[in-house]
Amino acid sequence: MVLADELAKAQRSISVAEFFEKNKHLLGFDSPTRGIITTVKEAVDNALDACEEAEVLPDIYVGIKRISGDVFRIIVEDNGPGIVPAQIPYVFGKLLYGSRFHQIKQSRGQQGIGISAAVLYAQLTTGTPTLVISRTSAATPACQVMLQIKIETNEPDIISTQEIEWDRAHGTRVQIEFKSSLAAKKRLLEYLRYTAVVNPHARLRVDLDDETETFERVSSEIIVCPKAIQPHPHGIEIGQLQRMLASSDGQVELFLVSGFSRVGKKTALEMCQIAGISPEKSAKKLTPDEQRQLIAAMQQVNVPAPPASLCLSPIGEDLIIRGLRKEFPMDFVRARTRPSSVFSGHPFMVEAALGYGGKLPPEGNAQILRFANRVPLMYQQGACAITGCITEINWKSYSVSQQGLPVGPLLILVHVASTNVPFTSESKDAVASIPEIEKEVTLALQDLGRDLKQFLSRRDRNRLAEDRARAVCAIIPEIAEKVAEIVELPIPDISPIEGRIMRKMVVKKRLSGDTVTIELNNYTDFNGTVSVYETSPDSAHDAEPKADFVTSLDTEFTKVWQVPLAPGASWKVTWKGRGGGNLDIRGIDEGKCVVVDLNV
Amino acid sequence: MVLADELAKAQRSISVAEFFEKNKHLLGFDSPTRGIITTVKEAVDNALDACEEAEVLPDIYVGIKRISGDVFRIIVEDNGPGIVPAQIPYVFGKLLYGSRFHQIKQSRGQQGIGISAAVLYAQLTTGTPTLVISRTSAATPACQVMLQIKIETNEPDIISTQEIEWDRAHGTRVQIEFKSSLAAKKRLLEYLRYTAVVNPHARLRVDLDDETETFERVSSEIIVCPKAIQPHPHGIEIGQLQRMLASSDGQVELFLVSGFSRVGKKTALEMCQIAGISPEKSAKKLTPDEQRQLIAAMQQVNVPAPPASLCLSPIGEDLIIRGLRKEFPMDFVRARTRPSSVFSGHPFMVEAALGYGGKLPPEGNAQILRFANRVPLMYQQGACAITGCITEINWKSYSVSQQGLPVGPLLILVHVASTNVPFTSESKDAVASIPEIEKEVTLALQDLGRDLKQFLSRRDRNRLAEDRARAVCAIIPEIAEKVAEIVELPIPDISPIEGRIMRKMVVKKRLSGDTVTIELNNYTDFNGTVSVYETSPDSAHDAEPKADFVTSLDTEFTKVWQVPLAPGASWKVTWKGRGGGNLDIRGIDEGKCVVVDLNV
Repeated sequence: MVLADELAKAQRSISVAEFFEKNKHLLGFDSPTRGIITTVKEAVDNALDACEEAEVLPDIYVGIKRISGDVFRIIVEDNGPGIVPAQIPYVFGKLLYGSRFHQIKQSRGQQGIGISAAVLYAQLTTGTPTLVISRTSAATPACQVMLQIKIETNEPDIISTQEIEWDRAHGTRVQIEFKSSLAAKKRLLEYLRYTAVVNPHARLRVDLDDETETFERVSSEIIVCPKAIQPHPHGIEIGQLQRMLASSDGQVELFLVSGFSRVGKKTALEMCQIAGISPEKSAKKLTPDEQRQLIAAMQQVNVPAPPASLCLSPIGEDLIIRGLRKEFPMDFVRARTRPSSVFSGHPFMVEAALGYGGKLPPEGNAQILRFANRVPLMYQQGACAITGCITEINWKSYSVSQQGLPVGPLLILVHVASTNVPFTSESKDAVASIPEIEKEVTLALQDLGRDLKQFLSRRDRNRLAEDRARAVCAIIPEIAEKVAEIVELPIPDISPIEGRIMRKMVVKKRLSGDTVTIELNNYTDFNGTVSVYETSPDSAHDAEPKADFVTSLDTEFTKVWQVPLAPGASWKVTWKGRGGGNLDIRGIDEGKCVVVDLNV
Repeated sequence: MVLADELAKAQRSISVAEFFEKNKHLLGFDSPTRGIITTVKEAVDNALDACEEAEVLPDIYVGIKRISGDVFRIIVEDNGPGIVPAQIPYVFGKLLYGSRFHQIKQSRGQQGIGISAAVLYAQLTTGTPTLVISRTSAATPACQVMLQIKIETNEPDIISTQEIEWDRAHGTRVQIEFKSSLAAKKRLLEYLRYTAVVNPHARLRVDLDDETETFERVSSEIIVCPKAIQPHPHGIEIGQLQRMLASSDGQVELFLVSGFSRVGKKTALEMCQIAGISPEKSAKKLTPDEQRQLIAAMQQVNVPAPPASLCLSPIGEDLIIRGLRKEFPMDFVRARTRPSSVFSGHPFMVEAALGYGGKLPPEGNAQILRFANRVPLMYQQGACAITGCITEINWKSYSVSQQGLPVGPLLILVHVASTNVPFTSESKDAVASIPEIEKEVTLALQDLGRDLKQFLSRRDRNRLAEDRARAVCAIIPEIAEKVAEIVELPIPDISPIEGRIMRKMVVKKRLSGDTVTIELNNYTDFNGTVSVYETSPDSAHDAEPKADFVTSLDTEFTKVWQVPLAPGASWKVTWKGRGGGNLDIRGIDEGKCVVVDLNV
């Protein structure tokens, strides 16, 4: 027998389940610790997608409990539309099964792999089947299925199925048990926090072993679910066209109009004309040569970009800023939502934000938050095209230090939304290097970088102005006093001099003995009301004039005075106290006002 | 109708071919340019694997030709064992089909995806079927198959099949056409060069558009093909054990002995005893509880590591050094093959090499060559665990500068060989972060780092010794001369002084007028023959004594004298010339010899 016959005996088909059981790290199960995060992520992704489709406000419960030794039970429950009983085994018990793969629209799940991978991991490490409960409406009972995956065939293996009572009117609950650890608890909470930031309409309740945390929704507005669109004529390859033609049953003109987005009757006729094909010809009967001519013609005709506003769901600049401000106190934060763009026919959109200062750690690398289709990316930062773009930007030209990554009190957020996010692996940890996406990320960050530079230089200018003001306000009175003493005249009113030098609203705060004074001098043409906010341990109950309102937090009191000020006018408040704290003037242009703490 | 029913209609099974058509970047087809490298890589991997299995010396032809516009034809032909006609459609026309996935041994191919992915890419971008010719022996005709993949089902679509005449007695030829570019030509040649380095037994002939290059084999020794082994009892999970039990048909004892590597009768009985299971019980009939007890017992019993020497095929320190020296002239090169180790039951072995100086670029990051199972990894260096390890090492402690990566004239080679290399994606570009592998890579590099440090400090010491020698040899004669003049006595013989100070073999080279002199003084106890190599533009045809042999390259002549030297002896040669060039003394310990060029 020849060797080839011998070798042929070893040739075998490999089931997808076998493949991913062996290569489980590709699905985010490279370590037991990571398994929990991956499972929660996949289940929460599904829950959010389902709620979006059903247009309900998501209310998601995540429970993680050690049940013995290194075995953990992970429960994720949602109030989504539920799954019909016949589909449950396939959705959870078959890899590469789902509703979102064949649709062109932004969704968190794309592959039909995620949650089945967790089922696979559970049966591999503990042999325990997964328990699913789902109910589709108050009119039907809930269905409980216990299932596994038949590894050799990648088909669901139903162990039991029964109707049960369930207190939810609709929704899905999945319970998975596998070997893991809670070593990455911090990162899990981070994942949930970031998820809450970009899904402000969702409530997440978490039971983590014995801790409980709730991420409350901050918006009750339901996100509009993106709509699926047809493929774009410029983003299609000959192989796909051939398949579409083979399964069509009409004339070429109709095929083009109904099969592609942005193709109307006129465009379709133009394509047919360039290809030299009669628009009435049966699409199915095109010869291979005609197919090639058609695809060439489709590329030649000008067609508007795909309707990104339909199929994409960006977070929006305002919501990004609000989400970030909630979690990270910063001196500066800006966001950009770039116009939509296209790679290989897939519409996409890049959003980015830059934050600076505040409570961000002043040293070390900038903090990078990466998101794809509203899902935080928690691993493989180094392998991600987003990180690549950040490293390639010359941050020094935006007054930020850089050692590979930018360093300093900087936060960088990037969100890539697409009908098909190109991940570097099935575990969806990192965005692949696609030039079109990289260009958009870079443009967004450069744009924000210019804003940051402006902020930083203004802050530096403001510091200069403050230094100058401090000198003027502290020294001029002393000079006036000395001069008055020498010439034996009364001390003159120095405010006109101050005003001429400063040409600003000058706010002076001073502690003399136990008396705190705040004095406002309006040397500008401002004519209106400013709010004086002072926060310090002084309660200032004896203030003269009295504060318009006072709030207290722990041992700090915030006092607010509403002060009407005409040009040239001045105002003063005093109280007994120890001073210190913060002083903030609102209602007047930052650049027109100088705050001087004369005790610093 | 409830929403869930509506949603259920969109639920569909996704074929593997569909999945990878959409996610083709996961397979290394992220850009047309890269497509050529990926295809050549997959085809050459298969050819080398097949030749290894057939124990023939690989003779591989790679042809790449632009056939029109942006369409390229890629041909890879080998002299391997061939593929039986019935298997050809599956090997090339079905993703996840192959002989190596289910075997536990080192091989280049692991997944049964690679070459079919190229077929998929061809039909997607050009609609052109792939042409395969294969012949399994001189006694059978060759079989030619034209095929594609049915995307919706991932099954082969045979367009034509016929017997043909072919001049090879056995082998396989595949011809694939797709849209691409030759922009990455340099990287393609690099890939082929590196492949030749780690497969010294292979001949690679390359036709690149209109250039031809041959990478000749440097060794005619056939690599011993690794043997497949059984799984190791410590590297198995309950899910796998359950499947193995279900398909077994004997007693538990026999199941353990025949199903696992390193398990003999004694070990099997011990496992049964700890698990509380009778060794005679039918393996198939174990209850779930007994299964759990059995796997726990399997982990408890001490079992030797898997037989790595059988299933792995490291390159070897000597061959790595020879391969590197051939491609990169360096002052220092060392290699290490680490002992084999295990992760999740998969045996693996790490090999590494460090090179320094010579013609390596003196500035910029160190050059990193990554290999896995004798295959060069050409992309995603930043995402690779190997790069991670290199960055984590403190190179400064080995006298090498570092900015993230080490910098300077440094070359780092790492080869990971395993029965299951954990790649970060199906495109097999980067090794995933597995702590056990990272540990071995780090240990190998630290070990080599210590050697490098020693080399560098010796080099520095040698420089010091040379400086000292130059001073001694140049100044002492002058002092002797002056002193002799003053005391009016003849100039004394200063060699004993030189000898006492140096205690080395001192080699002096000097140019006086147009006379070149090389003088050897052996102040050591060395007693033997040294070879004096002098390379310069001087032909030295008038040398006294005559050189033992002379070779010339361009305008440079290398003259060699064999010089027997007893302790205390000296030797001298002179010729007319301009001097300069290099002087090298071989046959005596580097540390015992000092070469002084007195004209420098």
